[in-house]
Amino acid sequence: MKPTGPLPPEFAAQRGVLHIAGRPAERWAAQAGATPCFVYDPAIVAARVARFRAAFPEVDLHYAIKANPFPPLLAALAPLVDGLDVASAGELDRALAVKPAGAISFAGPGKRDAELAAAIQAAATINLESEGEADRALAQADRLGVPPRLAIRVNPDVELRGSGMRMGGRPSPFGVDAERAAALARRLIGTGADWRGWHVYAGSQTLDAQAIVDTQAATLALTARLSEAAGAAPPLVNLGGGFGVPYFSGDETLDVERVGAALAEALAVRPAGLAETRFAIELGRWLVAECGVYLTRVVDRKASMGETFLVCDGGLHHQLAATGNLGTVVRRNYPIAVANTVNGARVETVSVVGPLCTPLDRIGDRVGLPPANAGDLIAVFLAGAYGATASPAAFLGHPPALELLAG
Amino acid sequence: MKPTGPLPPEFAAQRGVLHIAGRPAERWAAQAGATPCFVYDPAIVAARVARFRAAFPEVDLHYAIKANPFPPLLAALAPLVDGLDVASAGELDRALAVKPAGAISFAGPGKRDAELAAAIQAAATINLESEGEADRALAQADRLGVPPRLAIRVNPDVELRGSGMRMGGRPSPFGVDAERAAALARRLIGTGADWRGWHVYAGSQTLDAQAIVDTQAATLALTARLSEAAGAAPPLVNLGGGFGVPYFSGDETLDVERVGAALAEALAVRPAGLAETRFAIELGRWLVAECGVYLTRVVDRKASMGETFLVCDGGLHHQLAATGNLGTVVRRNYPIAVANTVNGARVETVSVVGPLCTPLDRIGDRVGLPPANAGDLIAVFLAGAYGATASPAAFLGHPPALELLAG
Repeated sequence: MKPTGPLPPEFAAQRGVLHIAGRPAERWAAQAGATPCFVYDPAIVAARVARFRAAFPEVDLHYAIKANPFPPLLAALAPLVDGLDVASAGELDRALAVKPAGAISFAGPGKRDAELAAAIQAAATINLESEGEADRALAQADRLGVPPRLAIRVNPDVELRGSGMRMGGRPSPFGVDAERAAALARRLIGTGADWRGWHVYAGSQTLDAQAIVDTQAATLALTARLSEAAGAAPPLVNLGGGFGVPYFSGDETLDVERVGAALAEALAVRPAGLAETRFAIELGRWLVAECGVYLTRVVDRKASMGETFLVCDGGLHHQLAATGNLGTVVRRNYPIAVANTVNGARVETVSVVGPLCTPLDRIGDRVGLPPANAGDLIAVFLAGAYGATASPAAFLGHPPALELLAG
Repeated sequence: MKPTGPLPPEFAAQRGVLHIAGRPAERWAAQAGATPCFVYDPAIVAARVARFRAAFPEVDLHYAIKANPFPPLLAALAPLVDGLDVASAGELDRALAVKPAGAISFAGPGKRDAELAAAIQAAATINLESEGEADRALAQADRLGVPPRLAIRVNPDVELRGSGMRMGGRPSPFGVDAERAAALARRLIGTGADWRGWHVYAGSQTLDAQAIVDTQAATLALTARLSEAAGAAPPLVNLGGGFGVPYFSGDETLDVERVGAALAEALAVRPAGLAETRFAIELGRWLVAECGVYLTRVVDRKASMGETFLVCDGGLHHQLAATGNLGTVVRRNYPIAVANTVNGARVETVSVVGPLCTPLDRIGDRVGLPPANAGDLIAVFLAGAYGATASPAAFLGHPPALELLAG
């Protein structure tokens, strides 16, 4: 039997029939009309927002919509956060539907001219990723006759320790190297652009509070130094995110209160050049991962060479990350349950697989579960981030997953 | 500088401007109307079919449409092959549009009742993956009043050596264990079902001809033994596929002629119980991978900490496998070229990345290329299989890739 990750706190104490947002899992499947489906509980998102607000009373909260751009979820979340961060013109359109442009910023390498023009026209902030992109943004702004709102994403000289995806301290497609960032800022300000400040994103998915504390302190020092060299106070410093969620056995919840206390101390003694600056933390996964449950029905229970398989109607085509095929080196099991016996006794060892003709399509590898048969629902947790949109939905021609916002 | 895989033979000798199906890459991008786009050359597919026919004159050729279900490609390929293998009701619909049901078979674990009914109603062959699925298929056939066309997929007691995905010789969601397959066949035949025979798929993507020869010999012996135990000659034995293509540096083309010669010898002395049986080989990747080129335009050329990045408008969201995120343990570079200088001198080391905000979005890691700048086209080869549909197209909200069939 291989271990599975811990159930999110809202589900960890449940026994018997799994309830999502107060209703049984089967009720949600019936409401969706078919399985597989994703069910998102906005109350769990609101609880994460509240925890953030309590821990970071002076800091803005941005939502990185790449984690989950499902429009009803986005509409529910937008009023709770101070800003939305987008990564494409498609995401920009979704964000503009629910938030004013002044609260939207657009990061991401390789922004096309049409994407830069769309952001400038909408008056969203562009986080510039290179000098070349800066030139193209200025050219688009000239053409449109609109002063662009510009910030610079900086490739920091530090990386986030213990993060699932390191994005700093190394040659990178993301951001302008720290040593060249101030010169670019001076040049942008000289053109009359609306200078918005700095964006620094050093990594993602860490559970190590001290690593985040250290990275935020380094980011504060870096942006203070850059601001002085640029000769301009930044209206906003986006400190990035990096807050992880516990996916796997042994993972422990990130101590965000400790991060918040340390950041408050650091901000209290920040350099004078940042005295009027607002600070933001940009979170995707941490806000939405735990709100989502993926429900898939067992189609077949079969035995093979002494092992038992629960073959489900959902899998890799909707939940690529849960199968260990999105940036994971060693495949480990996400938290998983039989929906009518959540947290029940682990009486048998089974592998939970999907319907695709590939051995990659494995949601649970030799996990311990209560008995389950064809017709039962299986719940995969932490499905609220990087699920439906981060999976190859068209692979093998199965229907797309349905998505539901509870409430 | 890290190595890249070899260009497919149709492109390996080109110099200067890359031509696909006789026309310059830029002409295809113009025809698509935008980048990124996939261009598929049906002449390359036809050449692979011809090579197969010459090497396996007595064996049927099936196309596994999961490799590339683009309807125009499927329509071009269907008349060239003897059968189409599908893995979902969605694929079944696409196959029925271009091929009679008698030439279509449906494999894959976890077929839902509605999928089984669709196949039975259409009179396609179902490759049963378990006893439970057999019971459900018989129930659907009863309900519809149609005798079902049934074959059994066998989980063989051998695996395909050197294959990218092993699917035999171990507990598996795929197929009925060999030791139970004959009993199931007897039971099916006893119900009056139209008995179609055996399907054995031991692995995929191997370049080792001897491994395929050995697996085919073992499969022949296994199906002879099972047929005798079942007391019925199988009309068809699907020997599986497993033919690989050279993606990476050091990979060499599979010697299919050697496989064909060995199979002909084995078939010549096959047991009497298989005397009237037809044999099929089921290929996906080997038929279509090399026909496809993914064209993506450089949006930004940037320097970071001494390295150079070509940031493109295409990447992981269309080419998950090329970024090393679909079943790959060690990330290696696919063959890649600057489209206006194909096979030009490798004057600089660059990393070719996509527009997604994740370090996973890397098409070429420190590859040697001729000079390239913003506006240039980059070609990624071997994009004809497991490309557009096997990638998370909706991730980060960029437009889907366009697909074109040349000709």
